[in-house]
Amino acid sequence: RAVTVIVGGVAGGMSAATRLRRLDEQREIVVFERGEHVSFANCGLPYHVSGTIASRDALLLQSPEGLAKRFRLDVRVRTEVVAIDRAARTVTARDLVTGELSSQPYDTLVLSPGASPRGSAALAGDFRVHTLRDVSDLDRIMASLAITVDDAPLREAVVLGGGYIGVELAENLLARGLSVTLVQRGAQLLPALDAEMAAPFAEHMVDAGIRLRLGAEVVGTTAVGASADPTDDVLLLSDGSTLPADLIFSAIGVQPSSAIAAEAGLAIGPNGGILVDAMHRSSDPAIFAVGDAAEKADAVSGEPRLLPLAGPANRHGRAVADTIAGAPDSGSPSPRALGTAIVGFRGLAAASVGWNERALRSRGRAVRVLHSHPLSHAGYYPGAEMLSLKLLVDPETDLILGAQAVGRDGVDKRIDVIATAMSAGLTASALADLELAYAPQFGSAKDPINLLGYLNSNRAAGHDRTLQWHELDEAVAAGAFLLDVRAPGQLAEGLIPGATHIPVEQLRDRHHELPNGPIVVHCRVGQGAHTAARLLGNLGHDVVNLDGGYLTWRDAQR
Amino acid sequence: RAVTVIVGGVAGGMSAATRLRRLDEQREIVVFERGEHVSFANCGLPYHVSGTIASRDALLLQSPEGLAKRFRLDVRVRTEVVAIDRAARTVTARDLVTGELSSQPYDTLVLSPGASPRGSAALAGDFRVHTLRDVSDLDRIMASLAITVDDAPLREAVVLGGGYIGVELAENLLARGLSVTLVQRGAQLLPALDAEMAAPFAEHMVDAGIRLRLGAEVVGTTAVGASADPTDDVLLLSDGSTLPADLIFSAIGVQPSSAIAAEAGLAIGPNGGILVDAMHRSSDPAIFAVGDAAEKADAVSGEPRLLPLAGPANRHGRAVADTIAGAPDSGSPSPRALGTAIVGFRGLAAASVGWNERALRSRGRAVRVLHSHPLSHAGYYPGAEMLSLKLLVDPETDLILGAQAVGRDGVDKRIDVIATAMSAGLTASALADLELAYAPQFGSAKDPINLLGYLNSNRAAGHDRTLQWHELDEAVAAGAFLLDVRAPGQLAEGLIPGATHIPVEQLRDRHHELPNGPIVVHCRVGQGAHTAARLLGNLGHDVVNLDGGYLTWRDAQR
Ligand SMILES: Cc1cc2nc3c(=O)[nH]c(=O)nc-3n(C[C@H](O)[C@H](O)[C@H](O)COP(=O)(O)OP(=O)(O)OC[C@H]3O[C@@H](n4cnc5c(N)ncnc54)[C@H](O)[C@@H]3O)c2cc1C
Ligand SMILES: Cc1cc2nc3c(=O)[nH]c(=O)nc-3n(C[C@H](O)[C@H](O)[C@H](O)COP(=O)(O)OP(=O)(O)OC[C@H]3O[C@@H](n4cnc5c(N)ncnc54)[C@H](O)[C@@H]3O)c2cc1C
Ligand SMILES: CC(C)(COP(=O)(O)OP(=O)(O)OC[C@H]1O[C@@H](n2cnc3c(N)ncnc32)[C@H](O)[C@@H]1OP(=O)(O)O)[C@@H](O)C(=O)NCCC(=O)NCCS
Ligand SMILES: CC(C)(COP(=O)(O)OP(=O)(O)OC[C@H]1O[C@@H](n2cnc3c(N)ncnc32)[C@H](O)[C@@H]1OP(=O)(O)O)[C@@H](O)C(=O)NCCC(=O)NCCS
Repeated sequence: RAVTVIVGGVAGGMSAATRLRRLDEQREIVVFERGEHVSFANCGLPYHVSGTIASRDALLLQSPEGLAKRFRLDVRVRTEVVAIDRAARTVTARDLVTGELSSQPYDTLVLSPGASPRGSAALAGDFRVHTLRDVSDLDRIMASLAITVDDAPLREAVVLGGGYIGVELAENLLARGLSVTLVQRGAQLLPALDAEMAAPFAEHMVDAGIRLRLGAEVVGTTAVGASADPTDDVLLLSDGSTLPADLIFSAIGVQPSSAIAAEAGLAIGPNGGILVDAMHRSSDPAIFAVGDAAEKADAVSGEPRLLPLAGPANRHGRAVADTIAGAPDSGSPSPRALGTAIVGFRGLAAASVGWNERALRSRGRAVRVLHSHPLSHAGYYPGAEMLSLKLLVDPETDLILGAQAVGRDGVDKRIDVIATAMSAGLTASALADLELAYAPQFGSAKDPINLLGYLNSNRAAGHDRTLQWHELDEAVAAGAFLLDVRAPGQLAEGLIPGATHIPVEQLRDRHHELPNGPIVVHCRVGQGAHTAARLLGNLGHDVVNLDGGYLTWRDAQR
Repeated sequence: RAVTVIVGGVAGGMSAATRLRRLDEQREIVVFERGEHVSFANCGLPYHVSGTIASRDALLLQSPEGLAKRFRLDVRVRTEVVAIDRAARTVTARDLVTGELSSQPYDTLVLSPGASPRGSAALAGDFRVHTLRDVSDLDRIMASLAITVDDAPLREAVVLGGGYIGVELAENLLARGLSVTLVQRGAQLLPALDAEMAAPFAEHMVDAGIRLRLGAEVVGTTAVGASADPTDDVLLLSDGSTLPADLIFSAIGVQPSSAIAAEAGLAIGPNGGILVDAMHRSSDPAIFAVGDAAEKADAVSGEPRLLPLAGPANRHGRAVADTIAGAPDSGSPSPRALGTAIVGFRGLAAASVGWNERALRSRGRAVRVLHSHPLSHAGYYPGAEMLSLKLLVDPETDLILGAQAVGRDGVDKRIDVIATAMSAGLTASALADLELAYAPQFGSAKDPINLLGYLNSNRAAGHDRTLQWHELDEAVAAGAFLLDVRAPGQLAEGLIPGATHIPVEQLRDRHHELPNGPIVVHCRVGQGAHTAARLLGNLGHDVVNLDGGYLTWRDAQR
């Protein structure tokens, strides 16, 4: 009887196990999990902190007993695989309760050991520090939150890291009533986004009551444990300031759990993950690796990358089972990784797919950048919310390199449509023609996605030339005339210094007031300025449109 | 100076006009509109009936004056084009106020005259009948709703037609407090969907208080106008019953306004619309036609079809402007029509794209049918709502032929993703690998879309054989054993008569209780039954899964 051994019993590992059983009733399937639980909802963990997910049990989707009954899986929790002997095709496992070592043979081995939270060196050993990866971590956090000092619960929470998990922790700690400071080393929140897209999200968090410390990092602590009262301890930040901290949550990234793979001589990628091909096969053909521990080919660059997301882990686990079972469709490689991701904070969502502008520029890639601020559905139907969208396009091929969206409604939909378009190799201009579902409460006759296609084809065809927010100062310094064409009622929102105001409707009559030299035209979001720029261009002016208008410019100033 | 004449000043016509002006400042652009208003939000009209869209002005997006100022358009309202002289390249227009005729030359002519509501022959001349196409119709409706008899407003509203507009009217009349009966000639509501998909939507309307009369049609009326009190008049239905009717709203479809085109000798399609090519050019190269009045190639069949939707009208209007202006990207034909559409009723949405099963089967097309009932987002996060999805796939090519979705949340997103996949020519199996944005409040690690891909590839690979709801009786009559594998707690929802219950978890131990002959296995939605069917199949049983499970079967019984 063939034996498949699986290391890791959650997203990737258990998806492989259940699918493999469905394909092959005879095979022996052994799942090793060093933690206490399998099949839990990692992504739900932060929401139990606030009680949004009230029941801890809701996070436990399966148990070893349930998996034995339903799928005849041999699941061994609290058992860590400590070594792989590739020549003998065995793994050595340690029972974490008894300490006993045992050897388990395999025909095929699936590694889905995930990743572990990076530690903050400056806080090594600090008893206040928590990380959140599994249910046991959550239990420890809940216990700490239940501690009272002089009958009051601990109050000052510091979250380290402004990525998705940091933001989710901050949301839930705040909802629980704690005072929350989020410390982020980088200059902006949510590094998956570009700065001007992340800024309004950060402002929203601040408005909700989060204290944000961007561009700062913890460098130490006063007298850890020196006082019996932990509230006496404060954190020292790199900018010289201090921060009260009863509880510290470190969410500064994860590192792939690839140690046993590396020790066994499997090829490791540039980011420390296990290198696999499109079939998730490692450098040893009998060993597959999926999930956070593996490196897969990036959709934009083709280079190996990490992809610490639940969807791919689930899907790739299933794909590996197909390959192992030799199912008829077992030959299909997984597509390259787009890295589609989303995070919410009190009703505001931020999502991204592909590469951001920062990453593209740092690689010296040519990129066409588009910003827009459309409404989530028809403006005349109540409840429409403004979206901020950004599209990054390869100017040579017109292929989409990445996209970002921030807003209260319809963010996930727009990013999913763009992710689908990217997967299918649609050009950015093809977005113009997508037939998306429209009724006034769901979208617009020209959906925000269609409009991105228009913006792009206008740029590609040379109808529109644009200037980015970060190019404005230089253009004005070089003598460009800054023209604000908003409707008079929109000026109250704020002004870009130095702009002259002439509404679009007056331009035909008043364009002789404009100088002969270069003109930068702007409106609130870019739309009216597009009409103005086309008009002025047709009248012989040298004109560029400020991409994303006043709103993108303002977001970038925050 | 080149002259472009546009007939129709709303979705298609005005989109052509504004784009053309942006591309060409010099051209003369004349827009004829026989109605009183241009650039209004047709799709918003029903929502003013209830006050959901409180302000009538919100529906008027532009005015002739505004369009003159912003776009230098020569817009002539209350002016109907009554004839086209193709040889002379002129149109004859009648001023509807003065009755005067005038002649207007053109170099290019754009027809976007829309469609007019079909009349109910049985009610011809009945003063109670309203149709809703433009703002003037809305004004008449609002005036009728303001009528009081003995100080009470009219109460009994009858909506004829169970398509999108009928449903929207019913929703808004009900919200206004009227007693609403919806009469639909066909046996089901929402003919864009298949019967089992439309049924829960219909039930939702009934639960909200709409009286539904399916399979009935108005054949006459007692004594129209015979009494001074209109509430004395009742409608006679084809089933012999009668219906009180103070106000009647006819929404039984539209017919393309192609008369002047036909009279001018332009080619007319099989559905009565103006035939155009992928560039929206009619049989006369100087004349373009877009919107509800035109027939375009269908994405699935390639045959000409009508497409009475706002999105395509807007986009095709813009595309025609590009062709006329000879813009650099003017060469790109519009893709074939998918017909993506959506409608809502008190929080429930129904959407579709491509062809439904009924249409495919009536053409004798081979089709693979998939039903599922996934949650809109991760089940462990509060607020997840059940979706009903249906996917129609070409079993030869694996291409997607159509999809339908009904639910309270995420319906538009899933249909948009599938529409994008269809546009791009992705196979149904490729849905499995789409990287969609996932956090627990937005989706699932295996998104409903990914699951459709799984279902499809299981069918394509022969892992799963399924039975449709309408095939069950025959299979059971032929001796199949019906096996219910739901968890015991799920049985309370209802039972399929004749089923034997063994939960999945007990199947390995008890499968010897099953007969040797064919087995139909079912669970609540198809998911557990899939695991059961794989297991039984692997153990040598002859087993098929009831597609969509108990829920689809139940929906089909309604
Ligand atoms: C708090 C949190 C929130 C998240 N939110 C989201 C989200 O919203 N969206 C999203 O897409 N992703 C999210 N993720 C990421 C997602 O959970 C992971 O990408 C996914 O779980 C990775 O699957 P995996 O199988 O690689 O690893 P895991 O699911 O972590 O499973 C790996 C398992 O292997 C075990 N293991 C490791 N080494 C060994 C060994 N040597 N022997 C035995 N067992 C071993 C570990 O104990 C672990 O349980 C979140 C993660 C966390 C922690
Ligand atoms: C109540 C209602 C709700 C709708 N809801 C939706 C929805 O939710 N989603 C969706 O996608 N679609 C919806 N639609 C359909 C959508 O509005 C139409 O598909 C779209 O407006 C078609 O554009 P068009 O330019 O072809 O026609 P129209 O927008 O109707 O414009 C045609 C104009 O041409 C004028 N005209 C006609 N003949 C002449 C002539 N000879 N001379 C001068 N003028 C002439 C007419 O008066 C009319 O104003 C809805 C329609 C209605 C009526
Ligand atoms: C709970 C768990 C064991 C379930 O595994 P599973 O049975 O493979 O997955 P699901 O319950 O999602 O079911 C998917 C299966 O049902 C099938 N299915 C789903 N809906 C169906 C329907 N309506 N009809 C028929 N089949 C259906 C799918 O095709 C798939 O089967 P396949 O892989 O053979 O094609 C596993 O998902 C797990 O451990 N999850 C928790 C960890 C995790 O993912 N964490 C990160 C996210 S928070
Ligand atoms: C109101 C109306 C006259 C506006 O016409 P319009 O100016 O062509 O359309 P919009 O206001 O949607 O603007 C779209 C233009 O702005 C551009 N645009 C949008 N957002 C932009 C941004 N952020 N930056 C730059 N340009 C932008 C688009 O590219 C497009 O220009 P293009 O066609 O030259 O590429 C026309 O849409 C209309 O008559 N609508 C009502 C009728 C109707 O559609 N009814 C059915 C639906 S209810």
